[in-house]
This record gives sequence, structure tokens and C-alpha cells, in this order.
Amino acid sequence: MTVTLHVCTTCRMGAPVPEDEPRPGARLLEALAAAGAPEGVRIVPVECLSACDHGCNIALSGPGRWSYVYRGLNPEEHVADILAGAAAYAATEDGLVPWRERPMIFRKQSLARIPPMES
Amino acid sequence: MTVTLHVCTTCRMGAPVPEDEPRPGARLLEALAAAGAPEGVRIVPVECLSACDHGCNIALSGPGRWSYVYRGLNPEEHVADILAGAAAYAATEDGLVPWRERPMIFRKQSLARIPPMES
Repeated sequence: MTVTLHVCTTCRMGAPVPEDEPRPGARLLEALAAAGAPEGVRIVPVECLSACDHGCNIALSGPGRWSYVYRGLNPEEHVADILAGAAAYAATEDGLVPWRERPMIFRKQSLARIPPMES
Repeated sequence: MTVTLHVCTTCRMGAPVPEDEPRPGARLLEALAAAGAPEGVRIVPVECLSACDHGCNIALSGPGRWSYVYRGLNPEEHVADILAGAAAYAATEDGLVPWRERPMIFRKQSLARIPPMES
């Protein structure tokens, strides 16, 4: 079953961005897409996850799973870890990846989580 | 269609809580339940929304809707506004309540939001 990795493309990483330069969030999306989505993961851009003080931000969600928002990500440093974490998430049924199997950024940079939708 | 108001019962509001006293999150749940859920809203306790620095925290989610996490809530002050905001959320199809119709706490204390699940 496919899960969704939402990537905020409007994140500025807390710094001014010149009008003619892509925002860090857009660069993160591009870097993730270039690296390639793992099996069972769909990468989807979104404008604003309402966590602008904490960018770059991403969210993971999927049917029957806990949803997570991660913050403080960096297009130059975190692409491989984000994709590894998304793959591990996709491999679960409930979205709860065992703590030790989560990339360090997912352990330390979780902004919030939301329980699965009830049917 | 019913939406879910998750209330974190383990939130401490950033302060130590004596072992024999209920946590602020548990008091918030109790106060919300006592006031009564609006039509179309189900109040569900949850242990930890992974936003412990910001408590009390709640989350709103529902089929086809954006999900929201709100932070910095207070069982003594915010019960009526939380329930009004949840009712407005339940009345939408996509979870996007017009800005001016949101209670002030929902405008100022949004921690993050997540787009609707894609089918």
C-alpha cells in the first residue's frame, strides 16, 4: 500500500530567500525526486504545512497509519535519511517504525504525530 | 461525516506534575468531554502527539480533510474555543475553515497541518 511523503516547497529554512532563487523547500523536493522515491512511497509537493518557523518540513501519511511531521530538514544533508525513513514507514502497517530503525533525524526532529484515522 | 478530536492526555504544559495529580492533558480531556462534543465530532484520548514541548496539544482529523495539530492549550481557558473550532472543522468538507471563522487559538497556535490522504 502506498504512503505519501509530502514535501513543503515554500519553506525558507528561516532565512530570507532572494526572489529569483528557489526556496530551500523546493530544492528539497527536487533532491528527493532526483534520488528517487522508494517502493511504496509517493512524493507529493505541498504549499505550506503551517510550520514555517521550523522548515524545511515534510509529512508522512498513509492509510491506517500514524501521520508524522518532521522539521528542520536540509536539502543538502538529509535526502538519503528522509528516503530511508519513508521506506521504513511504508513497510509498516501502522506507521510505527521501531525506534532504533528510525533515522536519527526522525528521532530528533519530529514536530508532531497524529493517530490513524478511525473508520 | 464524523471527525476526530484527539486530545493528548499525557501533556504536562511544560511543568512538573506531582505523581498523584492528573496531568493537564487529562484535565483538558475531561473538561472537553464534560462540555460535550459538538455534532459530528468524536473526542478521543491519545497518549502523546510527540509535541511534548508545546502541550497541551490536540489534533483534528477526518476523512478527506486536512489534519491539524494545535499546541499551547489550557484546560482552564480554551475548552469553548476548541469545541467551536472542532465544530467548524466538522462542517467543512476539506478541513479548511475560512481564516476569520477560526477561533483565535486555532489561528495562532497551529503547530502543523497535513494534507488529506490521497486515495
